[in-house]
Amino acid sequence: MPFVRTQAEHFSQSMVHCRRDFHQHPEMGWTEFRTASLVAERLDSLGWQVHIGSEVVDSASRMGLPDEDVLETCWQRAKQEGAPEFWLDRVRGGFTGVVGILDCGPGPTLAMRFDMDALGVQESLDDAHRPTREGFASQHDGVMHACGHDAHTSVGLAVAEALYALKDDLHGQIRLVFQPAEEGVRGALSMVKAGVLDGVDYFVGHHVTTSRACKEMIAGMGGWTATQKFDVFFRGEPAHAGGNPQGGHNALLAAAAAVTGLYAIPRHSDGPTRVNVGQLFAGTGRNVIPDRAQMLCEVRGVDTELCAYMYEKALCVVAAAADMYGCSAEVKEMGSAPSASSSPELAERVVSLAAQAMPYIAFFPAVASGGSEDATYMMRAVQESKGQAVMIGIGADYAIADYPGAAEKPPLAAHTSTFDINEGAMVEALDLLCNLALDLLA
Amino acid sequence: MPFVRTQAEHFSQSMVHCRRDFHQHPEMGWTEFRTASLVAERLDSLGWQVHIGSEVVDSASRMGLPDEDVLETCWQRAKQEGAPEFWLDRVRGGFTGVVGILDCGPGPTLAMRFDMDALGVQESLDDAHRPTREGFASQHDGVMHACGHDAHTSVGLAVAEALYALKDDLHGQIRLVFQPAEEGVRGALSMVKAGVLDGVDYFVGHHVTTSRACKEMIAGMGGWTATQKFDVFFRGEPAHAGGNPQGGHNALLAAAAAVTGLYAIPRHSDGPTRVNVGQLFAGTGRNVIPDRAQMLCEVRGVDTELCAYMYEKALCVVAAAADMYGCSAEVKEMGSAPSASSSPELAERVVSLAAQAMPYIAFFPAVASGGSEDATYMMRAVQESKGQAVMIGIGADYAIADYPGAAEKPPLAAHTSTFDINEGAMVEALDLLCNLALDLLA
Amino acid sequence: MPFVRTQAEHFSQSMVHCRRDFHQHPEMGWTEFRTASLVAERLDSLGWQVHIGSEVVDSASRMGLPDEDVLETCWQRAKQEGAPEFWLDRVRGGFTGVVGILDCGPGPTLAMRFDMDALGVQESLDDAHRPTREGFASQHDGVMHACGHDAHTSVGLAVAEALYALKDDLHGQIRLVFQPAEEGVRGALSMVKAGVLDGVDYFVGHHVTTSRACKEMIAGMGGWTATQKFDVFFRGEPAHAGGNPQGGHNALLAAAAAVTGLYAIPRHSDGPTRVNVGQLFAGTGRNVIPDRAQMLCEVRGVDTELCAYMYEKALCVVAAAADMYGCSAEVKEMGSAPSASSSPELAERVVSLAAQAMPYIAFFPAVASGGSEDATYMMRAVQESKGQAVMIGIGADYAIADYPGAAEKPPLAAHTSTFDINEGAMVEALDLLCNLALDLLA
Amino acid sequence: MPFVRTQAEHFSQSMVHCRRDFHQHPEMGWTEFRTASLVAERLDSLGWQVHIGSEVVDSASRMGLPDEDVLETCWQRAKQEGAPEFWLDRVRGGFTGVVGILDCGPGPTLAMRFDMDALGVQESLDDAHRPTREGFASQHDGVMHACGHDAHTSVGLAVAEALYALKDDLHGQIRLVFQPAEEGVRGALSMVKAGVLDGVDYFVGHHVTTSRACKEMIAGMGGWTATQKFDVFFRGEPAHAGGNPQGGHNALLAAAAAVTGLYAIPRHSDGPTRVNVGQLFAGTGRNVIPDRAQMLCEVRGVDTELCAYMYEKALCVVAAAADMYGCSAEVKEMGSAPSASSSPELAERVVSLAAQAMPYIAFFPAVASGGSEDATYMMRAVQESKGQAVMIGIGADYAIADYPGAAEKPPLAAHTSTFDINEGAMVEALDLLCNLALDLLA
Repeated sequence: MPFVRTQAEHFSQSMVHCRRDFHQHPEMGWTEFRTASLVAERLDSLGWQVHIGSEVVDSASRMGLPDEDVLETCWQRAKQEGAPEFWLDRVRGGFTGVVGILDCGPGPTLAMRFDMDALGVQESLDDAHRPTREGFASQHDGVMHACGHDAHTSVGLAVAEALYALKDDLHGQIRLVFQPAEEGVRGALSMVKAGVLDGVDYFVGHHVTTSRACKEMIAGMGGWTATQKFDVFFRGEPAHAGGNPQGGHNALLAAAAAVTGLYAIPRHSDGPTRVNVGQLFAGTGRNVIPDRAQMLCEVRGVDTELCAYMYEKALCVVAAAADMYGCSAEVKEMGSAPSASSSPELAERVVSLAAQAMPYIAFFPAVASGGSEDATYMMRAVQESKGQAVMIGIGADYAIADYPGAAEKPPLAAHTSTFDINEGAMVEALDLLCNLALDLLA
Repeated sequence: MPFVRTQAEHFSQSMVHCRRDFHQHPEMGWTEFRTASLVAERLDSLGWQVHIGSEVVDSASRMGLPDEDVLETCWQRAKQEGAPEFWLDRVRGGFTGVVGILDCGPGPTLAMRFDMDALGVQESLDDAHRPTREGFASQHDGVMHACGHDAHTSVGLAVAEALYALKDDLHGQIRLVFQPAEEGVRGALSMVKAGVLDGVDYFVGHHVTTSRACKEMIAGMGGWTATQKFDVFFRGEPAHAGGNPQGGHNALLAAAAAVTGLYAIPRHSDGPTRVNVGQLFAGTGRNVIPDRAQMLCEVRGVDTELCAYMYEKALCVVAAAADMYGCSAEVKEMGSAPSASSSPELAERVVSLAAQAMPYIAFFPAVASGGSEDATYMMRAVQESKGQAVMIGIGADYAIADYPGAAEKPPLAAHTSTFDINEGAMVEALDLLCNLALDLLA
Repeated sequence: MPFVRTQAEHFSQSMVHCRRDFHQHPEMGWTEFRTASLVAERLDSLGWQVHIGSEVVDSASRMGLPDEDVLETCWQRAKQEGAPEFWLDRVRGGFTGVVGILDCGPGPTLAMRFDMDALGVQESLDDAHRPTREGFASQHDGVMHACGHDAHTSVGLAVAEALYALKDDLHGQIRLVFQPAEEGVRGALSMVKAGVLDGVDYFVGHHVTTSRACKEMIAGMGGWTATQKFDVFFRGEPAHAGGNPQGGHNALLAAAAAVTGLYAIPRHSDGPTRVNVGQLFAGTGRNVIPDRAQMLCEVRGVDTELCAYMYEKALCVVAAAADMYGCSAEVKEMGSAPSASSSPELAERVVSLAAQAMPYIAFFPAVASGGSEDATYMMRAVQESKGQAVMIGIGADYAIADYPGAAEKPPLAAHTSTFDINEGAMVEALDLLCNLALDLLA
Repeated sequence: MPFVRTQAEHFSQSMVHCRRDFHQHPEMGWTEFRTASLVAERLDSLGWQVHIGSEVVDSASRMGLPDEDVLETCWQRAKQEGAPEFWLDRVRGGFTGVVGILDCGPGPTLAMRFDMDALGVQESLDDAHRPTREGFASQHDGVMHACGHDAHTSVGLAVAEALYALKDDLHGQIRLVFQPAEEGVRGALSMVKAGVLDGVDYFVGHHVTTSRACKEMIAGMGGWTATQKFDVFFRGEPAHAGGNPQGGHNALLAAAAAVTGLYAIPRHSDGPTRVNVGQLFAGTGRNVIPDRAQMLCEVRGVDTELCAYMYEKALCVVAAAADMYGCSAEVKEMGSAPSASSSPELAERVVSLAAQAMPYIAFFPAVASGGSEDATYMMRAVQESKGQAVMIGIGADYAIADYPGAAEKPPLAAHTSTFDINEGAMVEALDLLCNLALDLLA
């Protein structure tokens, strides 16, 4: 018995309401205290078994964790904003993952992933920007849902409600994985390490995209580059640059040597690689030999091996650059994701199912996005255990008709201050995910 | 008719009062709005002819000027703190120099210089620190008179009062030069360029020093290294480090090349030179090719020629480093001072006068301080016009006896949060400067 | 009337004789004085119209020309070795190209290219190396035909003889292009610039390869990377490193800055690129600031545009590196080749013809060789004028059976001291080229 | 009974003869096979006790030793030139030091040092150059006595003869130390380590100088900078720069990083320091990742401690630069000399003695030469054992009158192809050294 279109549309209004609430209260990676608490409360009230906090987030595998005081400040903010305290206590300190489980007897296990975090972007105050015009723009200064994770989370909660109602038609187990810190590819590994994907037969993720019109779909995404993000802290010795230059150990010189060394890592004949030192902060005063320098770096490879090659070389350069000037270097991993591709069988199953149940959607082949996505950790975990995994791109662009009176459509690029989605895409996502669950766990 | 000791001691209490007021209201270079206004008001009320603002500060020669909004914020603060508005209006925008002139008929011209600015240091809250213990610590967060310029200014106002009373014994002209922005060697040049030192026959400056006991004197300081402070702004093009690395013009790579190039400027066989890149800030995000980088630099030379050699080479390195990576480089001069030495004749006159009038003071020969001081601009201006110039170090250290009950004397190093002076040094300075004026303009 | 197998085999012995003579007298790029003179003499005696020297080699477009004295020494050697003086005089000074033309009435124009130069490799004296064992190893110290151009030239002369005999069956014009200095991709451009390829409808080149068995063929080679070879000469000022370090302009520091800058040229998202500084020589003595440095560099790109991108960036880096240390930099282009691919129509024609005329040959699709080849200049010239071009790989490997008593086959890698070819490959090449000419000019 | 002027002049002709013989047969450091053998033979025939070879040269302390085949080639040359075989056998392999000892009963020990090596300079063929004009120019291609050591050795042999005749007037022991490899400061340490200076009370060295007129003297030289010469060999892995760039370990990149790191070693506030990378050779071919690089380096300090500071930093830079690119670095010490100064007492004794015995000589105070000299090892060894040491500069310039018909005096700078000395200086040196011996061992 399929999940029919009218059922999906029934959730439209509640998903919009929910998404706009999340949009007004965006939380950056590892600080999704309010979001995760609300998700947990909702799953619990719907009848799902809830796993939360350190149970589903491996502490040591969390990358790019903010400082303690940032975590605490954000947690207090969530409390003031009325996040349910029972769950809030369990995510304190940056354990902001939630997994809902529904057991429906014997059968395969299906995991669906929804990421929850926002970005450090100041939302546009321009009236042409709909969240501003309609009054649901971010209330958190300098933070914004500029990549659609507010929609993903809302879809996840609607999926929870819809599938619970259909549980008699499902045979197997469903896990709804609400992930923190996807931005900067920091969170997925910690949930994989906590065992959240163990024993999963099917993994399904989705991402809204304004590069496709609503009702269009990229059936099986792939080709993300593997990446490793890392910070380097050089420590030397300060000294007066005029009176005692020989007394210093110059951390800025070490950093400068590292920068040139990093960009000189040889190209690899097996495929594209990348390296970047995106930011550098060094020194304490004009007339003091700099005793500290911090670099924000990343390397990439078209596959995981090439990324590993780049990272290995980078670590070698960094250590030697520190040695060269009598400094020390500490490297802190700030995020990472392997490369991965959707399983072709599952991608085809998505296409045929969607073609049958939602015939008006146009399909597009998998494309290399050029960027990175840490759902790849989950895809690999499932695929390496003989399961199948798929990431689905859900078209979420506007038509110009959606902007009455506008001369031209505002720019909607992800990670910018004017990003917005066609909220209708949430209905498409819900429709697809429910039908997929019914099909896979028939 | 000499200025006698008892007269000097008569000013003791008022100088302490004045210095403590300045100490509580420290103002950094080019923001000495309250200080300069009070100085002007006092000079005016004493009967001195007052020159202030753009009249005595050449606008284009001001180096290391803070941003407009910083200037305005500080000016508003001075207003709220009750600075006299008549004068305050005339120093707005960073024209915080004052010159008092007293004409006493035919005779030579004597200029005395007093610097007024404070440092960006957070004053110690420790009770062992006397300003804190006695309740006259800085009321301006992160700003502190940590180099004794509060004392210099106070001495200057006492000199004004004392010499006015003695004006019938003086033959010539006296100019009291209250200078902004000595820290970072940023202010002296602008007063020289405004002509403040034109026609001066004798230049006398002084500086308190905790490296000498009270009643000790360094009769003719010299040997400051010439220095040039400058900031470099590299501008390139940003680009996504993964998707379009070739589209970027990497300002951080340019800066790294400049750093290595700067430290490689050849040593000079004529004498010691120095170079330092004290701070570097570059980039906007981990995954973006850095399109901007800012470096805070300085070069030094044991004399002005060697400093010029270093600066010329540095400019060459910086321009080429930008070119190498398709970037532009803008260099902004942030401060400078030539080398200079006291005129021997005048230094000897100081010694012999002090020996006669204040026989209990110990004298020390000129020493190279290792640092820089922009009074050298004034000394050179006067010496190049056949005048004589002297800088006098006034011992201002404490004895342990001054710390009743203390196990050991707290550290008093200049530019640190626990700097303090023996206020008795102000009496010595006043005594010396007045007798010197009487002697030179006899 | 086709060129039949027995005819090709008839030339076998003379080609072997000719190839072994060239093998004993190898000449490096631009010094093929003996080879070119013998080629011209032979073409002339066969009845071909001969064009030689500056007529077919554009002087200014010659890249990587040896020094005058090297040219002269080699020319004298050729003279002593009995090269025919009439032709020898016309190639003096490094104009060692020859073109034979046979006009056969109206019809298309076909150009065939044969490269003539050897490499700076010392030939193996090991008895396992057949040229040594059989007494036809190189007589020129440090120079060796280690890439098979001796065979190409021999095939070219056999083609000249065979086609002359068939001239009544040919309709159009045939040009046999004997090219100097293919190694280092230095010579082709100069012949293109001299107009040698003007008006050509079909271009056919071939290269023997030990990576394929004899009687195997790569029908349409392609995928060579575009490359630019260049030398950089930095000039500064010497000075005694102890007594006058500031007097020097350090060319080695400039070179070091260039090296790090060159390897830091950004990767390009459009495809693979390469950069290398293969050699660096700098300085004159331990205690002298180096006033000169020479770098041997190359850049590559998977296509001509990417190669141009790399070269443009490289020139920018080099110029700035010189500026940084007050030096000058002169860049000398030492060789270059664009990317190119065989025309598919012509490649298919080769396959179908070969399949028909020489059915025992196995065919392989075009492959990217990874290296560079300057026939690409000729291919492009013809293709840009609407002609067709093809490069054919002729299998020339040995079977182990060819080494009676040997435990294993010696290594035959090109550019090494033990390179050798299966001379039977020359018959295959001759057979194919003649049939191709008959087919194209039918 | 003093050594009188006429005795000194008696040796004039033989010294000239001897010097011109050495001048025609110059031998570079550690290859003074002919020179040392002739010295030994002469000392022996005069009646001195001769110590030679590994007895007076510590094998492991020899720095900058040429390759074995160079040593052997030079030794064969010496043999062909008729060097006495008995002694020649004992210096084979680079043990070219000789010490002559004369025991004259109880008394102090006096050592005199004479260096014997030539330079890698091609002697001028210009007729204005006297050795060429008069037919005694170097017969060894590319080698020349361009620093006067031929004269020092000749003076040493004359001293041997003169003092032997005076041995009844001497009380103590005399050691004539003929040292190899002073150029590049490579040889003195090995003789000190062999114990040649043990127990010496007085050390006297001399050096001719064209910066002073004949009959002028620098009585007590000093102020040589301490120096350390070293070669660095980087080893990496070669790889094809196009096909396998990631396979290489780039020794040239390592060297480039080292070069920039070396010049960035901080200036020292205690005094002048120097660093230079005088030569760099790297790589094997344009399209191969360089797997080897050799750097010729030196550091200096105004004293031994500062030189040690520079060398320690340099070793750190070199090791890290190798690590940065996966290479190894081997450092080979090629020469070294500490700083040293003449003992004032002994210098004064030289002056007073010369003033008395040779009143027409002008005296000049000690000056810092700016360069280095490894007699400093010997001076320090003696001074550290409470002995006294002096180095004496002997004026050896020409007057224009010595060039009949010449428009101007040719340039006589040491280490250049036109260096020449006023041979009369040898008489002055002999006169002084003999009188000094008589005085010290009276």
